[in-house]
This record gives sequence, structure tokens and C-alpha cells, in this order.
Amino acid sequence: MAVNEVYQYSIVSALMDGVASHGTPIARVLEHGDHGLGTFRNMVGEMIVLDGDVYQMKADGSVVHVDPATTVTPFATVTRFRPTVTIRGAVTGKAGLKDLLTRLIPKARNHFLIVRMDGVFRRVNVRTAGGQLTPREGMVDVCARQTTHTFEGVKGTIVGFRCPGYVMGVNVAGDHFHFIAEDRKRGGHILEFETDGDVDIAAAQMSQFRLELPTEDDEFNEAELKLQAQGIKAVEG
Amino acid sequence: MAVNEVYQYSIVSALMDGVASHGTPIARVLEHGDHGLGTFRNMVGEMIVLDGDVYQMKADGSVVHVDPATTVTPFATVTRFRPTVTIRGAVTGKAGLKDLLTRLIPKARNHFLIVRMDGVFRRVNVRTAGGQLTPREGMVDVCARQTTHTFEGVKGTIVGFRCPGYVMGVNVAGDHFHFIAEDRKRGGHILEFETDGDVDIAAAQMSQFRLELPTEDDEFNEAELKLQAQGIKAVEG
Repeated sequence: MAVNEVYQYSIVSALMDGVASHGTPIARVLEHGDHGLGTFRNMVGEMIVLDGDVYQMKADGSVVHVDPATTVTPFATVTRFRPTVTIRGAVTGKAGLKDLLTRLIPKARNHFLIVRMDGVFRRVNVRTAGGQLTPREGMVDVCARQTTHTFEGVKGTIVGFRCPGYVMGVNVAGDHFHFIAEDRKRGGHILEFETDGDVDIAAAQMSQFRLELPTEDDEFNEAELKLQAQGIKAVEG
Repeated sequence: MAVNEVYQYSIVSALMDGVASHGTPIARVLEHGDHGLGTFRNMVGEMIVLDGDVYQMKADGSVVHVDPATTVTPFATVTRFRPTVTIRGAVTGKAGLKDLLTRLIPKARNHFLIVRMDGVFRRVNVRTAGGQLTPREGMVDVCARQTTHTFEGVKGTIVGFRCPGYVMGVNVAGDHFHFIAEDRKRGGHILEFETDGDVDIAAAQMSQFRLELPTEDDEFNEAELKLQAQGIKAVEG
């Protein structure tokens, strides 16, 4: 696969419906990208893919370096990231990053974006999903028990996507960021952040989207997959 | 690209918003498939792709064999079709075909399907979009002026897709069929049909979906692309 193309396994609506018992080997996902986000079987923790390495950020705050050959994912989005825009500057939180991306890449309203930020953060608030209590438990219920953490004065990296509104349900419309500390010991799904001075921002616009659906998966086949836009915004926004 | 994978250029919501002034060379689309549906610049006519040949079915009832090297499409969906299910039987219209597909391929509720039917039809009702009167005229207005034709006792072929509900707006959720007569002189978007005795039905389930978005296209960049599910059902259902 070429660079800066979106590859996605399964759809967010499947997670909403609790389809997370099975998945695809992460090694297969990595054939299509070296940066990205996702989750793990039974929605245990948050996934971040960084320079081809995969980390599982757990609800207790710990981070595990994942072996892609022996671990599967029920949902992941990755790209082979080659930045087309780079800039150094301070970013005042999610809203600031949103504005910056729109300014940096103005003609991407209906395209996908990938972004990576490296630097020192004054503060990062994350949440981490702890996992399903039972098979098919939906993401709204799983995230109702999410753990939140605040990291202060931490060096690390944000990886995120912006998806166009028309893929809501397939993926998350709008911005969606995960964070991992440089020591690879802390991280999660970003609720809010603030940089401490300037950070390095790299981004690329993407016009190719490749979706692979689960096969031989009764949970996926039987799920209703109705659009739950408000629910997705609540747990992923 | 492998067989039985969906390749799509642009999204149906863009047509709804009247984004149809530009497009991609049809020759590029054919690199990804030999069967499919679509439209042409300014939504002039209905496209059917059959065994790698592309036909433009116009509102006056005529059909043109299209040169893929010199013609562009603002929206098309194709697949390199290799049937995994074939059957011979009578089909009593769109509802009958819908039931038959669900019976033939029961575990495809959340997957894509491609279907082709060859035979003699007692009756085929089609509509054909005549095209935009002005740039950015939306598909609902274009289709308000559509022409309908009824063909009786005609030998021909139906090509169609079934798309899962969660791609509504990206494509058309549900079934969507076009027809072309064996003499390649009549055809259109199917409103209803009835077979005359048995026909040959071939289908395949598809779990890979590849979407290519227009680039360098201000119309696409500037379009709102809000989901108009009712409008899509009205003009494409």
C-alpha cells in the first residue's frame, strides 16, 4: 500500500454494538501502516501505533509493548505516514490543534488527515477503557467505567486522525487522538492537553480509504450496526 | 486488486450535493473492476460496467459504448467480479431478488454483495437521469426530471450492488441495480422488473471496500456532504 492511505479493520459501529471478541492479527494491520489507533480484544485498553511499534495502554495506567504476531485487534485504523506538512509551535489543547490542522491543510474538509505531535506537554488528560465485562457489551457501557489519568510535564507523542463527517459510524467523524509518553509507561485516549512551549507537528492529507470487514465472525454478522452518532461522539469525541 | 473487492470513486453524498463537474478517467476505475455502476459528468445518464465494457444509458433511451480513455466519471462503484454463488431460477422483481440474495448468502448482513442476472425479462422498468441543468444542481432535482422507460420481452443483464446500512451516504444502503439489453441499445437504473422464466444469477460477498476521494476538486472540497438518507432512498432505492 502506498503512503498516506487510510487502512481500517472493522467499523466503530461494531464496537458500539460490542463486537470485540475476535479480530485480525495486528501483524496484518501493520502491513498497511506504521501510525494509528485502535483497541484490543474485549476493548481492553487503548492502542497506539507509532513508528511501527504497537502499544496497549491499560486502564491501570500501565503500557504494554505488544507483539503483533500473537495479538489480534477487533478495530484499528492505520496509515503509512509520510508527513506532507511539518511545523513547530505551541498548541493550546484539542481546539487549538483542530484550528491549526484546518489552517495548515485548508482543502481537506472532506478528506482524512493524520497528525503526529512530539514534544513536552504541560498537561495531558487521558481516559482508558478497561474492557468488556461480558461479550457484546457495547462501547458506551464499557466507557462508562473508563479510568482517567492526568500526566503533567510529560514528554511524549500524540497520534490522531481527522475523519470526514460522512464516515460517522464507519469511523469517528472529526478528531480522535491518543497519547503515549516517551518512556512508554503512560498513555491513553486524549480528553484534553496543553503543550509546554513549542512542539513538533506533522500531518498529511489522505484521499484513499481502505476498509476491511471481519469475516467468519458471527458477532459481526449478527450485529445491527445502527448509527449511534451521539453515542460515538460521547465516547470518542 | 484482488477479486470481489469493492472499489469506489467519490461518494453518493457528493452527487446529492451536485458535485459532478469533474471526475476520474474511467480507464483508472477499470483497473479495479470489470462490473459496476456509476454516472457521468453532470449526471448525464446511467453507467453500467459489464465484462469490462462501459455503457452510458441516456435519458432519450439510447445507449453509448464509452471510451474509458477519454471519459471521466464523478462517481462509480466497481468490482473484479468472480461469482462465488450461481443459480438458475425465476425472479419476481426487486423484492424477489432481495430475498433470493439474502437466502443465497445468509451471512452477509453487514457485508457488500455484487450480483449479475442474465436472461429474458418479461418486463423491465428503468429510469434515466438526464443531467444537471447547472453545475452543483443536486441529484434530487436532477432525478425529478428523470425519464422512465418500460422494456418488454427483452433479453439482457442486470448488474447491481447491495451495500450495508452503515455506508449510507458514502454509497447507497441496500440494493441498487442497473439494466442493459443484450443488443446494448436500451437500459437504465432499475425501478422494477419481472423475469420471463428462468434467468442466470451470479453473486459474490465482498468484505474489502476501497474508497478513492476526488482531489484537486474545489466542488468536492467545498460541498457540505450532509447525510441526506431520505433523499438517497428516494432517488436510488
